[in-house]
Amino acid sequence: MSYSKLFSKRAQALKSSVIREILKVTANPQVISFAGGLPSPEGFPVAQMKAAFDAVLSNDPKSVLQYSTTDGYAPLREWVANRVSVNGAVIAPDQVIMVSGSQQALDLIGKVLIDEGDKVLVETPTYLGALQAFSLFNPNFVSLASDDDGLDADKISAADAAGAKFLYALPNFQNPTGRMMTEARRASLVAKAREHDLLVVEDDPYGELWYEAAPPPSLLSRMPERVILMGSFSKVLAPGLRLGYIVAPVEIARKIEQAKQATDLHTSTVIQRAVYEVVKDGFLDEHIPRVRALYKKQAHAMIKALETHMPAGVTWNQPAGGMFLWVTLPEGMDAERLLEQAFARNIAYVPGAPFFANAVQSNTLRLAFVTVPEATIDAGIKVLAQVFAQQ
Amino acid sequence: MSYSKLFSKRAQALKSSVIREILKVTANPQVISFAGGLPSPEGFPVAQMKAAFDAVLSNDPKSVLQYSTTDGYAPLREWVANRVSVNGAVIAPDQVIMVSGSQQALDLIGKVLIDEGDKVLVETPTYLGALQAFSLFNPNFVSLASDDDGLDADKISAADAAGAKFLYALPNFQNPTGRMMTEARRASLVAKAREHDLLVVEDDPYGELWYEAAPPPSLLSRMPERVILMGSFSKVLAPGLRLGYIVAPVEIARKIEQAKQATDLHTSTVIQRAVYEVVKDGFLDEHIPRVRALYKKQAHAMIKALETHMPAGVTWNQPAGGMFLWVTLPEGMDAERLLEQAFARNIAYVPGAPFFANAVQSNTLRLAFVTVPEATIDAGIKVLAQVFAQQ
Repeated sequence: MSYSKLFSKRAQALKSSVIREILKVTANPQVISFAGGLPSPEGFPVAQMKAAFDAVLSNDPKSVLQYSTTDGYAPLREWVANRVSVNGAVIAPDQVIMVSGSQQALDLIGKVLIDEGDKVLVETPTYLGALQAFSLFNPNFVSLASDDDGLDADKISAADAAGAKFLYALPNFQNPTGRMMTEARRASLVAKAREHDLLVVEDDPYGELWYEAAPPPSLLSRMPERVILMGSFSKVLAPGLRLGYIVAPVEIARKIEQAKQATDLHTSTVIQRAVYEVVKDGFLDEHIPRVRALYKKQAHAMIKALETHMPAGVTWNQPAGGMFLWVTLPEGMDAERLLEQAFARNIAYVPGAPFFANAVQSNTLRLAFVTVPEATIDAGIKVLAQVFAQQ
Repeated sequence: MSYSKLFSKRAQALKSSVIREILKVTANPQVISFAGGLPSPEGFPVAQMKAAFDAVLSNDPKSVLQYSTTDGYAPLREWVANRVSVNGAVIAPDQVIMVSGSQQALDLIGKVLIDEGDKVLVETPTYLGALQAFSLFNPNFVSLASDDDGLDADKISAADAAGAKFLYALPNFQNPTGRMMTEARRASLVAKAREHDLLVVEDDPYGELWYEAAPPPSLLSRMPERVILMGSFSKVLAPGLRLGYIVAPVEIARKIEQAKQATDLHTSTVIQRAVYEVVKDGFLDEHIPRVRALYKKQAHAMIKALETHMPAGVTWNQPAGGMFLWVTLPEGMDAERLLEQAFARNIAYVPGAPFFANAVQSNTLRLAFVTVPEATIDAGIKVLAQVFAQQ
């Protein structure tokens, strides 16, 4: 039978992520990959996770293996509520919904908020996975002015804001650029959101991964009544668990809970219980500093390699945390076309183009640095610099 | 701020499942609940699951805790492909997508196939969770003639079939009725699907849970080119894992894979690896017979209690497997209104109404029998019979 005529319009528009396609090339062990967004397995707390699965399956197996509530394991929701209650904000456990990783949070937020044609405000560039998730609900993306200090809310016009369902922001060490919104930019975003009655979706998987100093307080803590926060255990514990959370005003949280019920009933009870077992007594306070130190060392190695090898005209930012930095090639160069030549020399990266909702800056690219050994970073960047220099 | 104006049309239409609301009442330990669709924890293979998490986290922790591919763990997909290759059908591993429970399969199938207003054919009654999942994509449900032998495909008219995106069928021990499609009915559904070029979604979470004899071969095995099969580990291992699978023609499988990537990247690597560890050497062949024996005993206790206590005019079916049976009250009685009186006497069940996509038969109800001890089944049915007799 002919299947293509059965596909929905949204399915017909679906394309595989460029990143996933690139990852297929990087399966070759000869390739030095700055492409993947994988956390370093050096940071996985293997012994603690193993002990946690053993403990919860020993102590309470019949609950741990059974169906559970859609909103998530109550003690874990309470733990999340406490953890995000900073800067004077008080978040209640019933504002928290446990989800199967941050990507599911994007899907549920899209489901609950986006009708076809609805305006959604995004950074320039923004997280590709969000563009993919939201696109299933056919929004109209409006790209907002952004620079090394993050989203520049002062430049949001009344026309930009009018009728927008929400503004999607990544304040901390954004994927793809690694940039962080400054205190001044956060303050101006809060003022702008209040002025235009905007709802803000704050995506924060990387906020704990700072190198020298913690980032300024979250948008959620500044205006909990108009922020949906997305958080994740992928970067502070391990991504293979697939566990994250949404924090939202109660009325929105209940709607997301209903949507999640129809979407997958609930997130794995086993995973939620094991993660709670790991985090409940403060393990993250000793664990995350180790991940920070590792990632800081990797970032420095990447920046040193770029400074040593890159030809004049190639620029990059200096991330203060996270897993990525952003390279800008001279005007007129195309990072997507150059990727072929990089592949030919066994180097991979992700071109910047797919991270732009509108007006693509094709002379940009993302480099990930946390999974490549330091010596290999230097060797890989040396070759990449030669590829760029030949243009 | 006012949130309700921000909700999408699909979110505004969302209601909490009646079942989930009833489950809140049944949290009271004094209530005898025939409402929940929970498998019996007596059937959970606790020791095997514990050993499996320990093994995979000992042997290969860095892969087990890392991001993995959207389609799922390759050896597990191969295991599924072999398991569903019955009755002469040969299913390839690239037709299998691992998902976070069957409910997610419903969401992904809805995403990939349903545009607003599209016709979807369903049984009468049908699985409530499917109605909820598909409803997010605003289909037009058409209810098909069905009886104790399951869906009666001979009665599908050309007008019914015209333009339908798919037919959603539950051949084995259907939730809510417990009924099974006979061999003759399966054969006629296959003929009808071919005649009208229909795609069939076959939902089979309960097929392994037969009491006396295995059900006739799957629809998938009869026409793999026009069937999407949904399977689950929830009833043969444990539902708290949240693990299931979709088997589809390759072209549809690739589209579902793309939709899943945008929806949650992939299903928990840890869960997939642990489940593969449990099933890879044939454990289910010794485990499932124990679950079958347990459920058969429970079903017999329920039927005996009904025969002993129910007043004349109340009828029910005799399921040959699964977790549910279906009660029909005399014409004019309303199971949803009677629920209040049952609650007052500490008995819970699920009224039949929400399982009908169209023309509701409000004199029906679902009884679940696998988690209630035999003596309690008798005591509970005795009280319920009194509630019905008073009308």
